Amino acid sequence: MAPPTNRNTDHGRLLVSCPDRPGIIAAVAGFLHRHGANIVESDQYSTDPEGGMFYLRTVFHRDGLAAVRDEVTTGFASEVGQPFEMDWAFTDASVPKRVAIMVSRYDHCLLDLLWRARRGELHLNVGLVISNHADLADEVRAFGVPFVHIPVTRSTKPEAERRQVELLAGNFDLIVLARYMQILSGDFLKAVGAPVINIHHSFLPAFAGAGPYERARDRGVKLVGATAHYVNEQLDEGPIIEQDVVRASHRHSAEDLERQGADVERIVLARAVQWHCEDRIVRDGDRTVVF
Amino acid sequence: MAPPTNRNTDHGRLLVSCPDRPGIIAAVAGFLHRHGANIVESDQYSTDPEGGMFYLRTVFHRDGLAAVRDEVTTGFASEVGQPFEMDWAFTDASVPKRVAIMVSRYDHCLLDLLWRARRGELHLNVGLVISNHADLADEVRAFGVPFVHIPVTRSTKPEAERRQVELLAGNFDLIVLARYMQILSGDFLKAVGAPVINIHHSFLPAFAGAGPYERARDRGVKLVGATAHYVNEQLDEGPIIEQDVVRASHRHSAEDLERQGADVERIVLARAVQWHCEDRIVRDGDRTVVF
Amino acid sequence: MAPPTNRNTDHGRLLVSCPDRPGIIAAVAGFLHRHGANIVESDQYSTDPEGGMFYLRTVFHRDGLAAVRDEVTTGFASEVGQPFEMDWAFTDASVPKRVAIMVSRYDHCLLDLLWRARRGELHLNVGLVISNHADLADEVRAFGVPFVHIPVTRSTKPEAERRQVELLAGNFDLIVLARYMQILSGDFLKAVGAPVINIHHSFLPAFAGAGPYERARDRGVKLVGATAHYVNEQLDEGPIIEQDVVRASHRHSAEDLERQGADVERIVLARAVQWHCEDRIVRDGDRTVVF
Amino acid sequence: MAPPTNRNTDHGRLLVSCPDRPGIIAAVAGFLHRHGANIVESDQYSTDPEGGMFYLRTVFHRDGLAAVRDEVTTGFASEVGQPFEMDWAFTDASVPKRVAIMVSRYDHCLLDLLWRARRGELHLNVGLVISNHADLADEVRAFGVPFVHIPVTRSTKPEAERRQVELLAGNFDLIVLARYMQILSGDFLKAVGAPVINIHHSFLPAFAGAGPYERARDRGVKLVGATAHYVNEQLDEGPIIEQDVVRASHRHSAEDLERQGADVERIVLARAVQWHCEDRIVRDGDRTVVF
Repeated sequence: MAPPTNRNTDHGRLLVSCPDRPGIIAAVAGFLHRHGANIVESDQYSTDPEGGMFYLRTVFHRDGLAAVRDEVTTGFASEVGQPFEMDWAFTDASVPKRVAIMVSRYDHCLLDLLWRARRGELHLNVGLVISNHADLADEVRAFGVPFVHIPVTRSTKPEAERRQVELLAGNFDLIVLARYMQILSGDFLKAVGAPVINIHHSFLPAFAGAGPYERARDRGVKLVGATAHYVNEQLDEGPIIEQDVVRASHRHSAEDLERQGADVERIVLARAVQWHCEDRIVRDGDRTVVF
Repeated sequence: MAPPTNRNTDHGRLLVSCPDRPGIIAAVAGFLHRHGANIVESDQYSTDPEGGMFYLRTVFHRDGLAAVRDEVTTGFASEVGQPFEMDWAFTDASVPKRVAIMVSRYDHCLLDLLWRARRGELHLNVGLVISNHADLADEVRAFGVPFVHIPVTRSTKPEAERRQVELLAGNFDLIVLARYMQILSGDFLKAVGAPVINIHHSFLPAFAGAGPYERARDRGVKLVGATAHYVNEQLDEGPIIEQDVVRASHRHSAEDLERQGADVERIVLARAVQWHCEDRIVRDGDRTVVF
Repeated sequence: MAPPTNRNTDHGRLLVSCPDRPGIIAAVAGFLHRHGANIVESDQYSTDPEGGMFYLRTVFHRDGLAAVRDEVTTGFASEVGQPFEMDWAFTDASVPKRVAIMVSRYDHCLLDLLWRARRGELHLNVGLVISNHADLADEVRAFGVPFVHIPVTRSTKPEAERRQVELLAGNFDLIVLARYMQILSGDFLKAVGAPVINIHHSFLPAFAGAGPYERARDRGVKLVGATAHYVNEQLDEGPIIEQDVVRASHRHSAEDLERQGADVERIVLARAVQWHCEDRIVRDGDRTVVF
Repeated sequence: MAPPTNRNTDHGRLLVSCPDRPGIIAAVAGFLHRHGANIVESDQYSTDPEGGMFYLRTVFHRDGLAAVRDEVTTGFASEVGQPFEMDWAFTDASVPKRVAIMVSRYDHCLLDLLWRARRGELHLNVGLVISNHADLADEVRAFGVPFVHIPVTRSTKPEAERRQVELLAGNFDLIVLARYMQILSGDFLKAVGAPVINIHHSFLPAFAGAGPYERARDRGVKLVGATAHYVNEQLDEGPIIEQDVVRASHRHSAEDLERQGADVERIVLARAVQWHCEDRIVRDGDRTVVF
């Protein structure tokens, strides 16, 4: 589920989506071999060998990758990408993703990400934290990360989103909502130009929407969970990346569930962010393929 | 979660529900002590010490319990039960519950219960299996358990339920739906006069209703689960007894999820049946207290 | 496993160990009732109703507890404690435990405890962190907690332990080793006069001693774990409080296992510390009873 | 961990082990493509791209596979296998493995395997059950599987093993020890000529040897587990295939742990057998790679 990261220089990653048909792997592996690259990890998935979609993640080593990247990219486009009608992307595994975090008042997911990033667990740079509350400014700045307070009210929301987009668009590869309690508009999602990962504090699709721990308590469930997902315009409906659960019992109040759930939230979100930053996730319609 | 069963002779169990107020435990423990009983297990739960409900499960040892049961029961009613406005029940831990199982075509939950009963894991006697299909007759009878085939169609359902009730009412302490794929009417539930436990093949409240594995596949969830609950007139809405989950991924088809889920279903159902037969479960409105 | 904490004023806890015999609960519950206390939680365990040991944890509410504590304690000793040959202890649930943490260089367990304490998850006061390295001084002081650097070498160890004991003995109710990589002497354990909880980075008794992740990797295990235990003079042999595990595979290097394991370590240690601070743990010889 | 099985006709599997070097995947994928095969699953692992071992499992579809199998095999040997110094094996995914089970008195693992095989969950044929006790004869034969009783005493063991080998060698692809309580000699393992999978009732390397549940109880562990491993001449030392655990507490006697553990044993063994029969397991020295 969480294999080791490969952060060495001269390592590249190739993500491919295309209609399945014979010969894809031979074409990709042959191309990489001819260009001096050695495959060190490879994973694939086909929704259906007859007429389905084919997904591939390959990690390769190539001495002096940075110097030949453009040439390899151009070659791949014409020799493999176009003939197989691929959506594809090369990434340089040595370049950490640029990440911004949005948060409201709960600090557990935020601090966990900042701490994992500092330890070197996550291959990413957190370059900015935006919050609609000022509370966590000192906490964040102690990690050497800029903190910007952008209050949001019903009337100022469009303006607030404009300021957020100004800071984010073009500057970040990933936006993480670490318990950001405002709903983002479709306009924001389009303008921000980067994927957005959210942590929802329930095992979706159970208890979508507000107050999941209270509702879990009311329903008397015996497990509570958390869900990391990409954000789309439907609230709590985006493609699920990761989920996990923890035991609950009649003895747990909604507050107890919230406390128990916080541990699951931060672990689930950390996994999702790590996998995204390692280019392990491909979207397959409303679902994800996690390699 | 699953402490040892106590099947010795001369062991009794006392289940109590009443409005919480001071002195309940002192009264119960004092009564038992005066009547020569030694408490060997005791668990309690209060929804709120001020004005909430109090629940208690006590297991006690009393030499010659069978001989004094009526006397103890009468005494408890007047000395403790009435003064504290209790709902209460004494059970003799040495008497196994009489259980009937209803099943359609899937055999995994049924066989698992029959195996566990034969191994002595569950303190119960399976006295009857009723199915709307004939398929599993040989399997069941090989365990020495009677099998009755009662076909159900839309038009014969009322008549079928009448025949089921005829066999069940008064004869069984518990009815287990081990993947019985027919919805039971409110009339059946009233007439059968015993609690009914169902296993639902999803992590409720997610994917209530039909086809949960297909819908889990469509939604792209990363865990699938099973839920054992008491049956009431609202489909898949009864008090939850136990739930568990297992990992899923993009590689799993709905059939794969069904296969994986079958292992969770049988374990979750077995736990729920065991706990019920050990008098561990009290209903707290739409929830359960599991001691 | 982790029921809600009760931190209200006027709540007391009673922990009892004694030879099992009839009437214990009646005596305890009767005593509390006569002294105006209402039992709000109670859990018990007997190793054997015939000649075994009996353990009890009771939480009760008594208006104005602080004012009557001495009187209740004296009364309990003569009326219940002595007649039943009990080891027993009353604690005031509103008084947080005084905790000191010892740590070397790994920060994950330490920071997790400090965070949880700051969030109010753990009912304790961390009053001191002692480390044999200076690295974590700033981190700790940012939480407002004193940090004392006491270097330890082979030759200075006795002197270092003397300094540690000077700071700890009489001042703290619990010492937590949050990845403290020095073995504590028997003399230290006697002199410090408080229980010591350690987190070991393996699923004991597997991989006791040094380098558990390397050895787990070499053995090819499919799960790695962590164990929180009380420290006694035998290295990694003290009574186990809590354990948990996480998946491993052939893809994980020893470093990967260490990273995965760190998440388990901090959760397992946090649970053990929380349970200890809620007076949930009784030692039963080399084992623990966790209520 | 447990992706779907592929049981279609015309599907082949290729398992490869060789020293890692550039071009292996290109060579394999190119060969399969030239021979009209379409890769539908592929997984690989390298212990170290520089001088390590490379492991590959590929599932491919080729119309009319049975007719070209010999030709493909010969071609692969000369074109790919020899140049890359591979250990390799082709298997026809449509041919179920021939499996024999050895068992003593505990029936839970045996019945679980027989039942899963009958349901079609495991792609294998159980052709024989051998036991040193007669108890389970009826159970086994009810599944239509031959049962042979070969008693074993200290003095008759060599003769008993000779009879076992007579029945097994050449006839079966896999021997499963489903709680077979006799130690098999090195001579047996050599003579039987097929891999042997055992289920050990502890989380190895903890509690290797006899009486693991008693020892787990004595040590006071908070989880008990089971381990499926290949058998070699060192007792409980063979390469581990799969492990899992379940919660334990002070309330569990050794018998309770045994009952709880039985559920883990049968699930862990079923996974190991399934993965073996799907050619997912490669031995990497004393460890396993599970694709």
